[in-house]
Amino acid sequence: MEKLDFQSDYLEGCADPVMERLVRTNHERSAGYGLDAHCEHARELVREACAAPGAEVHFLVGGTQVNEVAIFSLLGPCEGVIAATSGHVSVHEAGAIEAGGHKVIELAGHDGKLAAADIDGYMTLWEKDGNRDHMVQPALVYISQPNEYGLLYLRAEFEELRRACDAHGLRLYVDGARLAYALGAPENDVTLPDLARLADAFYIGGTKCGTLFGEALVFPRPGTVRHFFTIAKQRGALLAKGRLLGVQFEALLEDGLYGRIGQAAVAQARRVSRAFEDAGCGLAHPTQTNQVFPVLTDEQAQRLGEVALASFWEKPDLGHTVVRLATSWSTTDAEVDALVSALGSGILG
Amino acid sequence: MEKLDFQSDYLEGCADPVMERLVRTNHERSAGYGLDAHCEHARELVREACAAPGAEVHFLVGGTQVNEVAIFSLLGPCEGVIAATSGHVSVHEAGAIEAGGHKVIELAGHDGKLAAADIDGYMTLWEKDGNRDHMVQPALVYISQPNEYGLLYLRAEFEELRRACDAHGLRLYVDGARLAYALGAPENDVTLPDLARLADAFYIGGTKCGTLFGEALVFPRPGTVRHFFTIAKQRGALLAKGRLLGVQFEALLEDGLYGRIGQAAVAQARRVSRAFEDAGCGLAHPTQTNQVFPVLTDEQAQRLGEVALASFWEKPDLGHTVVRLATSWSTTDAEVDALVSALGSGILG
Amino acid sequence: MEKLDFQSDYLEGCADPVMERLVRTNHERSAGYGLDAHCEHARELVREACAAPGAEVHFLVGGTQVNEVAIFSLLGPCEGVIAATSGHVSVHEAGAIEAGGHKVIELAGHDGKLAAADIDGYMTLWEKDGNRDHMVQPALVYISQPNEYGLLYLRAEFEELRRACDAHGLRLYVDGARLAYALGAPENDVTLPDLARLADAFYIGGTKCGTLFGEALVFPRPGTVRHFFTIAKQRGALLAKGRLLGVQFEALLEDGLYGRIGQAAVAQARRVSRAFEDAGCGLAHPTQTNQVFPVLTDEQAQRLGEVALASFWEKPDLGHTVVRLATSWSTTDAEVDALVSALGSGILG
Amino acid sequence: MEKLDFQSDYLEGCADPVMERLVRTNHERSAGYGLDAHCEHARELVREACAAPGAEVHFLVGGTQVNEVAIFSLLGPCEGVIAATSGHVSVHEAGAIEAGGHKVIELAGHDGKLAAADIDGYMTLWEKDGNRDHMVQPALVYISQPNEYGLLYLRAEFEELRRACDAHGLRLYVDGARLAYALGAPENDVTLPDLARLADAFYIGGTKCGTLFGEALVFPRPGTVRHFFTIAKQRGALLAKGRLLGVQFEALLEDGLYGRIGQAAVAQARRVSRAFEDAGCGLAHPTQTNQVFPVLTDEQAQRLGEVALASFWEKPDLGHTVVRLATSWSTTDAEVDALVSALGSGILG
Repeated sequence: MEKLDFQSDYLEGCADPVMERLVRTNHERSAGYGLDAHCEHARELVREACAAPGAEVHFLVGGTQVNEVAIFSLLGPCEGVIAATSGHVSVHEAGAIEAGGHKVIELAGHDGKLAAADIDGYMTLWEKDGNRDHMVQPALVYISQPNEYGLLYLRAEFEELRRACDAHGLRLYVDGARLAYALGAPENDVTLPDLARLADAFYIGGTKCGTLFGEALVFPRPGTVRHFFTIAKQRGALLAKGRLLGVQFEALLEDGLYGRIGQAAVAQARRVSRAFEDAGCGLAHPTQTNQVFPVLTDEQAQRLGEVALASFWEKPDLGHTVVRLATSWSTTDAEVDALVSALGSGILG
Repeated sequence: MEKLDFQSDYLEGCADPVMERLVRTNHERSAGYGLDAHCEHARELVREACAAPGAEVHFLVGGTQVNEVAIFSLLGPCEGVIAATSGHVSVHEAGAIEAGGHKVIELAGHDGKLAAADIDGYMTLWEKDGNRDHMVQPALVYISQPNEYGLLYLRAEFEELRRACDAHGLRLYVDGARLAYALGAPENDVTLPDLARLADAFYIGGTKCGTLFGEALVFPRPGTVRHFFTIAKQRGALLAKGRLLGVQFEALLEDGLYGRIGQAAVAQARRVSRAFEDAGCGLAHPTQTNQVFPVLTDEQAQRLGEVALASFWEKPDLGHTVVRLATSWSTTDAEVDALVSALGSGILG
Repeated sequence: MEKLDFQSDYLEGCADPVMERLVRTNHERSAGYGLDAHCEHARELVREACAAPGAEVHFLVGGTQVNEVAIFSLLGPCEGVIAATSGHVSVHEAGAIEAGGHKVIELAGHDGKLAAADIDGYMTLWEKDGNRDHMVQPALVYISQPNEYGLLYLRAEFEELRRACDAHGLRLYVDGARLAYALGAPENDVTLPDLARLADAFYIGGTKCGTLFGEALVFPRPGTVRHFFTIAKQRGALLAKGRLLGVQFEALLEDGLYGRIGQAAVAQARRVSRAFEDAGCGLAHPTQTNQVFPVLTDEQAQRLGEVALASFWEKPDLGHTVVRLATSWSTTDAEVDALVSALGSGILG
Repeated sequence: MEKLDFQSDYLEGCADPVMERLVRTNHERSAGYGLDAHCEHARELVREACAAPGAEVHFLVGGTQVNEVAIFSLLGPCEGVIAATSGHVSVHEAGAIEAGGHKVIELAGHDGKLAAADIDGYMTLWEKDGNRDHMVQPALVYISQPNEYGLLYLRAEFEELRRACDAHGLRLYVDGARLAYALGAPENDVTLPDLARLADAFYIGGTKCGTLFGEALVFPRPGTVRHFFTIAKQRGALLAKGRLLGVQFEALLEDGLYGRIGQAAVAQARRVSRAFEDAGCGLAHPTQTNQVFPVLTDEQAQRLGEVALASFWEKPDLGHTVVRLATSWSTTDAEVDALVSALGSGILG
């Protein structure tokens, strides 16, 4: 029997309605580089969903690419981006921001989240530092929604971050690689229009949320960045057959598919999470979205691995292992049933 | 009636066998980032096709991206790449090479081709220049096969370029965005094993030759570049669902599809080319591959435009226009018949 | 007997009045990084000399450094600088502009000079190019006064360049490494106030014109660049004991030393130039400033070398050599007398 | 009466013997860019002092510049440098390393020092991280001797760091901006030959230790870096009249001046340090070299400021201020006497 597989949320291709559209439109002929009617329509759908009629929307292929190109486009010479030490741009993009010439200013954060007080604290010291002209100029704050541990920023936290950014002359960028799973979480109170109102730039993730690939970068206020098209071209981020991105986002946004994907996967993750708790395991982080982080003894981790594949996450100490299980648009009831049943039957001992 | 459309070779999605495989494999689960079985198999197919069993093969998404990442990976500090003034990296990649910190040293070339004598000439002067330690160190030669005007390097020319590169300590890189159309040209005598023998790096183009997207970068000799995977990640060029690239190259290479695509499109281009010549038009460049460059009066260009879409290419003088018509894997006999018939019926006057 | 030495204009240390001031102020204590009273005074002297009371003035150490930092500060993402193929930034700065991420767009020029028509021609094509969003955005024009062949832009030429820049949305940058020798040339009609009026940035060269080192970069209009101090720091171009630069420019500018240096050296160069012409030699370029470029047979070049050191410049053909002789603030009458006398006595045969 | 001034160690010009040589050699004529006899001699003096006969020695103008150019030259694509959070490259160089495309991986350190265990700890986790191919590759360790708080690495600590570097495939770079003051400290047991044996690159600081400007970068093992001359040129770090650097280092090294400067300044700092302690003040860091960091009440800091200028360093809490007093080659007995006397007379209350 094949093992259950909860290793990541990008194991499969794309949701069926997305593939159907790709097949259906395959022999259409259109202009390249996102200048086609599908992209234009998908941009309009994004603007509507965000209640941001003037927003600039660009479709790129993947998450690290969006972060690299967008943050590069938002920073001037000597400017840097503030991020949590555990932020994706801090640690898992192989130095993409630095390769573009900019420092990631890492703050400790709390469970991978930055609070307004963190920004206020850092900036207040910086503003008073007599050597600040010899230092990187903080210009942007990077957060992810949900963050790398699957945790949510609530609206009040976002409002506070925005206030702190405004107080210190910073812009706010939100990485939405898994945004569907934030939007689909019961506790979530941050809507797309909230994001468009509070962030200077954010992206609506596709790769992990139902498409083959593709992320929709949104600059809610027009004129935020000059020459973005050319910057993307220069950095190898302009897809020749750009309409593939438009077609996929049409599928996600036209009839609510994006919302359904997020809700379903979060519900599955809750079932998985409860099953671990019922089996007596602690969680390294509360389960808010589509990722579950049980703390296992090494022996339990091995036993789990005989039934279900999960990602190694970290070792909090000798003897224990944190693993990550991710649900996604492709997770089936049967898979979760099987895992819940296995956990219930005492496989962890 | 819809107009005929010969504007480019990336108007449609992908060849049907490619799409069929994408659909068939859509719900497979696999590791990300090209570490899956499809990519491994596709790499093996590339190595076999190139008769280069030790070759390193990396799949990336698009042509500018491959050029940017591969050339960056091949150059050290202060090193530059020699290219024709009309080369894609010189003019149409928005400064991607320079954004990576390296100069494109532009040589005039001949119809967009660099000859060994051009390399010898430039390098001999450089080597004798007392100020060469104050100058960019030439380290790599960039050519494209076929080149930006659809022209071929023959094997004897390649051998000479290789000799010149060896004589001056340079590496040789070949941009194969339209490689299928070179391989499919009657005059061509440069095989994939020849490329693997003569070049230090080259890529087998997919985007313009039958896939939705994707290029196969080949380093024929292992160890040519260190950390390529991480370099690609850093530059936003690592596709999360990398297997999409492997699946598409399996489709291209498993049963000769890549060869058939090239031959068919070149044959169509020859018909288009002859039809323009029969209509009394000159050609800005001889038609060797899948692109045709008729020289039209401005009035003829307008008349053509009422029947068939072509790309504006350049104005050689007031009163004349060069346009480009491209065939591709998606060009049908009926389309070419219609264009030939229209040209034969005297639409150009 | 030691040979005469005309190899370059930076053979010696500095003019005596400059050294005297460095000695006199050596044990003063002052703030670092150019924030001291000497720099402030020298800035004021520059502003007065340029009749540009609002100008921002920054002192940097050397010419390539100024070009690198200033051009970097003036360009945005995807923007490039237009220069003559023979321009210092094009060829003799080891790719400093590209290392900062920007393309040098090389135009052929005329004797190393760019004419307004060159700018108009390039930009008109660029503006009409349907692919210009895939191309580097021209944003700045680089020229040098005098240029690499010692030639002058006259005021009418400058006015035309300015007009062309304005017409196409470009800024104008003037490399003044040898500016004293332009200001001191009889034909010159471009004053410092003209430069301040016509250029967006330029520098007043010190290293080749009387100081140990140091160049005064002028942004005539305040606010041209943000964060210049920090950009200079980041690029290793901020001198800790910045006052050394201020002290030297005080010496150059307080009592007309800069003007006297230029006039004297140009007069010496004219004597050298006439002596070669009297000896029957042609000149590769007319002698306008402090550099002389006689065309010699290879045998003549060898004979000259027994008496006086000159720089090899280029070989126009087999059998002939162009050499360069430079005069400077340190050239003495006795040296020029000796050279003139030797040439007059028929050493070239 | 002018206030005493202990704000930094680069307030004045240069030590008198250095200036005397600059004056004496001012009208010599020599090749540029460090290719002259003075530089060659000074390189030989450095090699002798370091007992490293094969060492490559390059003279650059300033400390941030050396760090920027040397670290850039030592790192390949995707590689990063490990430094303490308080390291000069981490915080006070305006992002120079990142501007070159590389990440500074910041570790917390202990009083600004990195221990071998810090390196072992970070690298062990990194080597075990399944995602390390998505992360910056650590390649170099940056430390400063003495460090930013004036503290010394002892030889045993250096040996351990070297072992850790070797164990994890890292190189070791030592910033010696204030190296004279380490060499002149009583506790110091790390000689120049030790540095040459244990580090892959280090520099002997001039700017803060007796010269007008200038640092001697040493690669003890030849071939460590390719094209360093051209890299320096490209980054604006090649001084035209390079011999100015050679002449100054001849003065420092020919007769032991560098050693005397260090010893004298450290002795003065000890007197200053004791005087603060005698006045009842604590020290934020022990005084090992030429910097003293008394912890004052805000009122005391104000009173001190009426007599002697010091640098604001940090506020450990509301009500207290840490200031820094630096001695240098230019500090006189009389100045220290005056400060000691003032502190002894109870000015701090």
